[in-house]
Amino acid sequence: MFKIRLLVSALTLASSISVASAWEALPTEAPAPADNATTADKIALGQMLYHDPRLSSTGTVSCSSCHNTMLGGEDNRPNSMGVNGQTGGRSAPTVWNSAFNTVQFWDGRAASLEAQAAGPVTNPIEMGMKSWDDVVARLKTIEGYTHSFELAFGKDSISKENTTKAIAAYERTLITPHSAFDRYVSGDKAALSAQQVRGMEKVAELGCTSCHSGPAFNGPGVFQKFPAIPNGYFEAQYHFSKDKGLAEVTKKADDEHMWKVPTLRNIALTAPYFHNGSVKTLDQAVNMMAKLQLGKDLNKEEIADIVAFLNGLTGEFPKQKMPVLPGTPGSTFN
Amino acid sequence: MFKIRLLVSALTLASSISVASAWEALPTEAPAPADNATTADKIALGQMLYHDPRLSSTGTVSCSSCHNTMLGGEDNRPNSMGVNGQTGGRSAPTVWNSAFNTVQFWDGRAASLEAQAAGPVTNPIEMGMKSWDDVVARLKTIEGYTHSFELAFGKDSISKENTTKAIAAYERTLITPHSAFDRYVSGDKAALSAQQVRGMEKVAELGCTSCHSGPAFNGPGVFQKFPAIPNGYFEAQYHFSKDKGLAEVTKKADDEHMWKVPTLRNIALTAPYFHNGSVKTLDQAVNMMAKLQLGKDLNKEEIADIVAFLNGLTGEFPKQKMPVLPGTPGSTFN
Repeated sequence: MFKIRLLVSALTLASSISVASAWEALPTEAPAPADNATTADKIALGQMLYHDPRLSSTGTVSCSSCHNTMLGGEDNRPNSMGVNGQTGGRSAPTVWNSAFNTVQFWDGRAASLEAQAAGPVTNPIEMGMKSWDDVVARLKTIEGYTHSFELAFGKDSISKENTTKAIAAYERTLITPHSAFDRYVSGDKAALSAQQVRGMEKVAELGCTSCHSGPAFNGPGVFQKFPAIPNGYFEAQYHFSKDKGLAEVTKKADDEHMWKVPTLRNIALTAPYFHNGSVKTLDQAVNMMAKLQLGKDLNKEEIADIVAFLNGLTGEFPKQKMPVLPGTPGSTFN
Repeated sequence: MFKIRLLVSALTLASSISVASAWEALPTEAPAPADNATTADKIALGQMLYHDPRLSSTGTVSCSSCHNTMLGGEDNRPNSMGVNGQTGGRSAPTVWNSAFNTVQFWDGRAASLEAQAAGPVTNPIEMGMKSWDDVVARLKTIEGYTHSFELAFGKDSISKENTTKAIAAYERTLITPHSAFDRYVSGDKAALSAQQVRGMEKVAELGCTSCHSGPAFNGPGVFQKFPAIPNGYFEAQYHFSKDKGLAEVTKKADDEHMWKVPTLRNIALTAPYFHNGSVKTLDQAVNMMAKLQLGKDLNKEEIADIVAFLNGLTGEFPKQKMPVLPGTPGSTFN
């Protein structure tokens, strides 16, 4: 947990100083870690694995089932539905632009996309595989994967590490640039409406940007406490504090209710909101964020302006080929 | 049921005469009904609808969840898993080349792809929508669909009829030509191995082709009784007769255990086998078909030859674009 603690400290520092709003367009490429350079063969393999329901115990749930690459990168549900119709307590974060998160999962417990990709596959209520050994054994029965892994990683390379590396390499291509906001900050002043510009200015003025700034609106810090300001009225309805966030993993009092600051990119498409998906509309979410994080009351016009601005963060979804998954002659589930 | 009864009579006739094996390559285009000409706009809309989980009550199950267009057109499960992890009693038939079926569903109760597409959406254990009115109402909330339906069918055209027409138009493009068998019958005598050719000859000699002939190996008749020859040993293990097939719909004694003759195209990819998905391997399925339909015992070599031939029926899957589904700002499920 050393790295995460450092990041939390960095956040504490960042949130205690005034942050200038330097609006930044989304990069069209994401940096890759030193040990997992992005290559075309890894992307192609990763796209197959990401969409392959055979990575789940029942053969019915792929990464894309909950983080849907044909939609806003998630499932518009409060909680995702894993194998055998099971649901958990958290809402699926969007996969779009997740390459620009410093940490992954709502509680930030994974330090990389590679580490994240390892989690859901063996989570009993998500993809339900008993172990990664079972996943690797199954992948080895699918002849076409032997060839695709070989292209990406060399001979006899089907492993947990390479599976998660390929998925992460693919996810690094899931970037949605050229939103109205991006076009605006790149000089096209007609890209945002007057209302959207008012909303943008309000976002900076209120201080939303002390946590939600940078190209993905998820920095400069990494973690933040939510709710920052206790509110019995909202708590009674939405139970935000029932889930202790990072502390569920670290068991440390300091980490209670600490959450990864999520991106605001494509947020209009990712209802319902918050870690438990308890809030159905963006209007409500904006109102609550002002109240719970900044101690401010917004009027209807302010909320409408901010929501208009947030709608301007919906990006362009890249054109993708539908993967043809390698067949498994004779393979069955259950 | 008038049309279906006629088809059953046609089958009875066909199976009583000797059928010459005129091996036929798969057409690369499927005919469309007079009232649903295949157009590019319908195909594009149909592809979106086919892959859209918002056609299910939970937002988790699309047509493609069980009839997977990235795989062999189904899910390799004995029974598919619908909303909330529910399963039924029948195995998902492949969507590939379903355009060449005279009737649809295992029991052939739908006379067209259009009629078939209407079924699973409101089946409580499949996609679970309460009614088609609800489906249409939901589609109308998705702004992008208004435009796509307009392109395909004209203004204000979101309806059950047009939804199923678009899905059917898309499905008519899901054809897998150029299998080793197709190349062989088109003149490339090296496309099938000596063993595969032996298997092909055995298939004709045994009489498999009296039901499984034509370009999709699912004619000349439409329905057939299964099991045709009672067999207590197999019945005790696989419970084939528990499901009465067409009679479950028509309630007529004559229709008991009558089933649509399924295509053999891509059969190597669609395990497990039979209407209830109870048989895991193609070897077993071939052995049982000989015994239960033809009253013949095959030896290991004959089975291996036939299975080798059936593997030669795996076609080329068309390259498709991944659809970008129209977003629903603010929409949530549950």
